[in-house]
Amino acid sequence: MLGNVLVGQSGGPTAVINSSLAGVYKTAKDQGVKKVYGMLHGIQGLLEEKVIDLDEQFSNELDIELLKRTPSSYLGSCRYKLQGIDEAKEVYEKIFAILKKYEVKYFFYIGGNDSMDTINKLSEYARLINSEIRFIGVPKTIDNDLEVTDHTPGFGSAAKFIATATKEIIRDGLVYDTKSVTIIEIMGRNAGWLAGSAALAGEQHVNGPDLIFLPEMHFNLEEFKEKIIALQKTKKSIVVAISEGIRLQDGRYVCELMNEDKSVDMFGHAVLSGAGYYLANFLKKSLGCKTRAIELNTLQRCASHAASLVDITEAFGVGGAAVNAAIEGETGKMIILKRISTNPYLCTTESYDVSKIANLEKKVPKEWIKEDEVYVTDEFLDYVRPLIQEELTPIYIDGLPKHLVRN
Amino acid sequence: MLGNVLVGQSGGPTAVINSSLAGVYKTAKDQGVKKVYGMLHGIQGLLEEKVIDLDEQFSNELDIELLKRTPSSYLGSCRYKLQGIDEAKEVYEKIFAILKKYEVKYFFYIGGNDSMDTINKLSEYARLINSEIRFIGVPKTIDNDLEVTDHTPGFGSAAKFIATATKEIIRDGLVYDTKSVTIIEIMGRNAGWLAGSAALAGEQHVNGPDLIFLPEMHFNLEEFKEKIIALQKTKKSIVVAISEGIRLQDGRYVCELMNEDKSVDMFGHAVLSGAGYYLANFLKKSLGCKTRAIELNTLQRCASHAASLVDITEAFGVGGAAVNAAIEGETGKMIILKRISTNPYLCTTESYDVSKIANLEKKVPKEWIKEDEVYVTDEFLDYVRPLIQEELTPIYIDGLPKHLVRN
Repeated sequence: MLGNVLVGQSGGPTAVINSSLAGVYKTAKDQGVKKVYGMLHGIQGLLEEKVIDLDEQFSNELDIELLKRTPSSYLGSCRYKLQGIDEAKEVYEKIFAILKKYEVKYFFYIGGNDSMDTINKLSEYARLINSEIRFIGVPKTIDNDLEVTDHTPGFGSAAKFIATATKEIIRDGLVYDTKSVTIIEIMGRNAGWLAGSAALAGEQHVNGPDLIFLPEMHFNLEEFKEKIIALQKTKKSIVVAISEGIRLQDGRYVCELMNEDKSVDMFGHAVLSGAGYYLANFLKKSLGCKTRAIELNTLQRCASHAASLVDITEAFGVGGAAVNAAIEGETGKMIILKRISTNPYLCTTESYDVSKIANLEKKVPKEWIKEDEVYVTDEFLDYVRPLIQEELTPIYIDGLPKHLVRN
Repeated sequence: MLGNVLVGQSGGPTAVINSSLAGVYKTAKDQGVKKVYGMLHGIQGLLEEKVIDLDEQFSNELDIELLKRTPSSYLGSCRYKLQGIDEAKEVYEKIFAILKKYEVKYFFYIGGNDSMDTINKLSEYARLINSEIRFIGVPKTIDNDLEVTDHTPGFGSAAKFIATATKEIIRDGLVYDTKSVTIIEIMGRNAGWLAGSAALAGEQHVNGPDLIFLPEMHFNLEEFKEKIIALQKTKKSIVVAISEGIRLQDGRYVCELMNEDKSVDMFGHAVLSGAGYYLANFLKKSLGCKTRAIELNTLQRCASHAASLVDITEAFGVGGAAVNAAIEGETGKMIILKRISTNPYLCTTESYDVSKIANLEKKVPKEWIKEDEVYVTDEFLDYVRPLIQEELTPIYIDGLPKHLVRN
């Protein structure tokens, strides 16, 4: 019988992060691992020895099916940045003491850039102390900003929800025969993968959003206004998709401009709000037309009722591949997705040196952005489209999707 | 062969308003009506003779299936308030001249309170001039604020989306091991049916939102803060559902506290948005914890990807019943839904004098609100739960729900 597994989840959740947990759990059990433990709230919880036995959580195959359909991080998450080995040796000693106590042989961390940094440091420390514990990272982020991997689990489902909502919002905008501008604010501080995915709402590039602004481009308020005025000459309802992280040429975030307007509440407190609200206000004041800001907010990362089956399957797959890699003796690696072909879509997994992935950020390549037309290219769409395919029907109880709740 | 039909859609759209259009169209054709015309953008478009032949739009049964799954108003909508017969006789003359030109015998208007006022006035005018044209109202509004009818088509799907999103947001809020308050802002100016439906997210009244504030209750900022502080003693992640229209004891909308200048729409209704942001800001300043405002915005009325099949079926049914009532000679009526039994759920249609429904507003009864606990009662939940049942799978093309687009 193999040694025990410890698995954790870190960073912002996705609609499919629990599918990766299901992949780790099920593959480990199938491989003959004795115990699969989960750490609550990642490394932060581990340091407080918040460890649970997953066999006590998942009692049958239906639980695994529910887990795949449950949004947010089943184990809870954290935003804990592990310090360097030289700076905080006692933290490493504490972690390894807990791992020893639970007889952990395989350690999996499902997360983004920061989590891969954790895997990198822990595997490095293990090497220094000649520990045989193996550390493998399982990629996860709606932002799709991890390097080397073709894409990240979580991105496809977020893109699918964003495209679905955008399509519905575009239709909703057509309802009145009056001029209106709707701004859809989409997550993505530095990378525009999610905002670009709003373009999928168009069919044969018809009827998608009219403009898409990514953080990779400079945003100019006057040019924005001119583009809206030009569009209003031919159509009444205009829909614009923006990344929350769009910035002016001078580097300021558009959402920061709100503060400079000194919007205050009745107590004189500055009101903080997003880029979408700022732009909707700006256009209302300068053009006089009806405007609306729609912030997709956390729904884009937790709307598991509308998740992509391709994404769920891949999330499960990277979890399983991590277990297999660890059992085969690998450590200090992250599982990556490798696209074999786009049409038909074929994708496989490999493991890759995590030190070459951690802390890096993959942005939308310049050649996939039509800067003049303020849109993404067909190449961008061909890249994303396979990732939003197919659906996994929620298990509905009394009209609502059923989730698996931790004991 | 029977005379022609003219059908229009008015007011804010719903996820199922097109299912009522499908019900009118299909029943009229099945009954042997020659032509079914649609007015674009309601009465406002009709006055400009924007009339289309629906036979040219719907070419087969698949189109009808797509129409049922298409959000927003297929024909476009308006917020046109028809003046009194004495005030604007020329408007009535113009409308009836157009009806005569298209040989319209049956007139259907799918809408809410204001639209029922239109049906009431037009049927009254027809009586005055001895016209044989029959006018029937088809109820529609996510707000569920029409009188007499047990509930309104559109409400169930909005409630289902709100409950689904609330459930996902509650789970998302649990992800970090830190104090946070999430405010979900839900539509509803004067009636709290939609905000109350957020309570469906709880299972056996566990894990729903922690507090629900309806516009039927007075809102008090200090009491709100105290309730949050009390809740924070036992749990970290708190989720609050509020109606956009919550007001202070002195009658001011909470969202007005944000802006000095109050915007109004053409009916003089205050344009509301921002109560959630205001409260999130207020708690952040006064309690120092992480807060987030999530405005479900137009998604709650256009998320047809998550519509209720009970709602879609009833929306189709009231459209069909309107046609049958008109052919049987009725006029000046609205079709109402009459609940026969809640468990098992059985509901039928009847017609009802529209003059006794128009311009009235049905609020959540006081006895269905737990004022002390700031929640809705089990009776409220038993009333709403049947309306969110079952799903009608979208027809997915390339990973996204397919809609029917007007030629």
